Amino acid sequence: MKDTGTLDALVRDLFETIAEMSLDVAGVSRPAFSNKETEVLDHLRAWAEGQGLHVAEDAGRNLLFNLPRDVEAARFVLIGSHVDTVPQGGNFDGLAGVVAGLVCLLRTRDEGPLPRPLKAIAMRGEESAWFGPCYIASKAMTGTLNADELDATHKGDGRSLEAHMRDVGIDTAPLRAKAPLTDLSRILEYIELHIEQGPLLIEKKLPAAVVSGIRGNLRHRAVRCIGEAGHSGAVPRAYRRDPVLAVADLLVRLDESWLTILQKGDDMVLTCGMVGTDPAHHALSRIADEVVFSLDIRSQSANVLDQMRALTDQEMRQVARERKVRFEPDGEMSVAPALMDSAIVAGLSDAMGRAGLEPFVMPSGGGHDAAVFANAGVPTGMIFVRNENGSHNPDEAMEIDDFLVACDIIFGHLRNASG
Amino acid sequence: MKDTGTLDALVRDLFETIAEMSLDVAGVSRPAFSNKETEVLDHLRAWAEGQGLHVAEDAGRNLLFNLPRDVEAARFVLIGSHVDTVPQGGNFDGLAGVVAGLVCLLRTRDEGPLPRPLKAIAMRGEESAWFGPCYIASKAMTGTLNADELDATHKGDGRSLEAHMRDVGIDTAPLRAKAPLTDLSRILEYIELHIEQGPLLIEKKLPAAVVSGIRGNLRHRAVRCIGEAGHSGAVPRAYRRDPVLAVADLLVRLDESWLTILQKGDDMVLTCGMVGTDPAHHALSRIADEVVFSLDIRSQSANVLDQMRALTDQEMRQVARERKVRFEPDGEMSVAPALMDSAIVAGLSDAMGRAGLEPFVMPSGGGHDAAVFANAGVPTGMIFVRNENGSHNPDEAMEIDDFLVACDIIFGHLRNASG
Repeated sequence: MKDTGTLDALVRDLFETIAEMSLDVAGVSRPAFSNKETEVLDHLRAWAEGQGLHVAEDAGRNLLFNLPRDVEAARFVLIGSHVDTVPQGGNFDGLAGVVAGLVCLLRTRDEGPLPRPLKAIAMRGEESAWFGPCYIASKAMTGTLNADELDATHKGDGRSLEAHMRDVGIDTAPLRAKAPLTDLSRILEYIELHIEQGPLLIEKKLPAAVVSGIRGNLRHRAVRCIGEAGHSGAVPRAYRRDPVLAVADLLVRLDESWLTILQKGDDMVLTCGMVGTDPAHHALSRIADEVVFSLDIRSQSANVLDQMRALTDQEMRQVARERKVRFEPDGEMSVAPALMDSAIVAGLSDAMGRAGLEPFVMPSGGGHDAAVFANAGVPTGMIFVRNENGSHNPDEAMEIDDFLVACDIIFGHLRNASG
Repeated sequence: MKDTGTLDALVRDLFETIAEMSLDVAGVSRPAFSNKETEVLDHLRAWAEGQGLHVAEDAGRNLLFNLPRDVEAARFVLIGSHVDTVPQGGNFDGLAGVVAGLVCLLRTRDEGPLPRPLKAIAMRGEESAWFGPCYIASKAMTGTLNADELDATHKGDGRSLEAHMRDVGIDTAPLRAKAPLTDLSRILEYIELHIEQGPLLIEKKLPAAVVSGIRGNLRHRAVRCIGEAGHSGAVPRAYRRDPVLAVADLLVRLDESWLTILQKGDDMVLTCGMVGTDPAHHALSRIADEVVFSLDIRSQSANVLDQMRALTDQEMRQVARERKVRFEPDGEMSVAPALMDSAIVAGLSDAMGRAGLEPFVMPSGGGHDAAVFANAGVPTGMIFVRNENGSHNPDEAMEIDDFLVACDIIFGHLRNASG
């Protein structure tokens, strides 16, 4: 590794310039499929061309970067992520993965050819905060964006995703036909660097980790538990239909199953992030008639998600019977888990070891474009960078030193691959 | 029992007239210490005088009714309740107890003297809905109204309870000195008829029941459980401080203790009527950082309340330790239980049997003026009347036939007492 001084300064400057371009009241805002997003892509194009890279736009109006010698490459390794952010988000969620691709290109420019051609990609909209659907650019590339998703409307102006995509110059007719915008057979590997969205690397004092897979989920936004209102002092236990105790009972049962699943060595997380009696009717001395709560269950294993779906249903029926309440779940939303390619996981782990670190492999709880490529059959890998304070907020905190260590792991993997 | 036809018609007409005087958008509204309340008392006075009863006002501007021959009685049995209601409440909560006293007076007028003199009382404000403090009139009578309570302000006009009491002609100086307005030694027994506020008599198909005691309570309006926010998919179980699962865990533990206490034969009810994550911050995919919930624990036994206070504290500490959260309870509010006099409970039960009913004794979950008299040392009894749909709402539904059965039980007890 050479020129790290220069690379370090270049990277810091690039991150800072793009943050300044997209400052909001708090943090940064780069709406999906917006002029602001295009402005950031234009800056990346100018910057990369200044570094001697070749830059092209694909049919999804994403940018592809490569060394001039790889312009005609039939097949290539693709490294990248998205440039959009959530409203008032952090600068690194997405952008760090794009810059990682550029860092690898600069290093192969300076250190000599890799066994396989390399391209970097800066994708547009990935965040669900703007329209509802997530992974939009990568779904468009892989032909997996639904008509429903194209029709989803912007939280601000109420215009459809399709209208916004057209605004930035995308021909959406192939998307309606679910035709991939990209020839996926040309992508040897897709590799994405992302800040960790949880606290594990901070806790473990590790700068980076290799991702084993991206958790799928099964989610309910609003399950209603319906009981019967009554005077808190006047209704004996045997005559109650208390939905608060029923929901507490259900959550404790699901929590116990979660523990059992972890003890068996399986992967899972479970969250009830929203719960509440109705503030318009609830009172200190009134047994509530209804509680509404959300459920978010995630696992790398489709099998665990299936188990939990059945178990949740079974426990709801059991609690309903025992406590004389009724559960009314809204429609389930679900995303399939995406396993990272085992050869890439092994390659990145080896590179982590060669970089002088104990290889550490962990699941990703949040979803990423990498899940879309993996589920479209592209061999995919991911690397996490240590990050304080989670993501989707202005306080995300990735150290550039950790970022360069993670880039070095990717580069080590690329350099070591057979051509 | 004679003249039931006439009595039935008289009672129906009296309830209806007073309901019409106090109609609101929904149900009836008779604010505590208001002109509306005075208007209802004036109607009762005129009605009673029309029936040949003697009517007098006490220092608390409550009305006392008796047969002319008992005007000079040194000691007497007192039967009554309050005439105020909650906003948009029902017509029977309070008023039924007043009318029960009048019914007993008419029956002794028609059927001949009882072993002991009898007075009926129509009290003013009992409901906490208007100022915050409850049992105001009976506390004034017994010298137990606090300065804080006198200073409590009306939810509507913001003026103090003391100002409103003065408005209806009460001299509040003795109240400030906590001097009883009534010579309690003259009250041989205080007996109150009230609609049941729970579903037990409906479920048991019984017109009435004898009350064994009035549950005391220990309550918290808002206990905070503080955890740590995080990404629902990205934080492993071991690193979570999830306040939702912590509160669920706590409630299930308290519910289990409740069941144990019931199985030991003790009396208790437990309600968490309000619970919620913060709608300003909560999200499907965010581990909540805080949950706020209420607790309302009631029992006829001060010992059970003490046990539950200690147990709640202990379980909070246990859950806090195990789940790495923090519980911050607000100040505890509590009311001591009030046991009904055992001789009166026995007397009313015997009368219930003589009326051809299986004697049934049950606790009162709601609080009543009877609790104030009992805790002031007056031998006190209560009788519940079957009532559908609870109280404090326009849908309360007491049948006049059931009411007359309950009056008959009280009258049977009065007639059977030794002089």
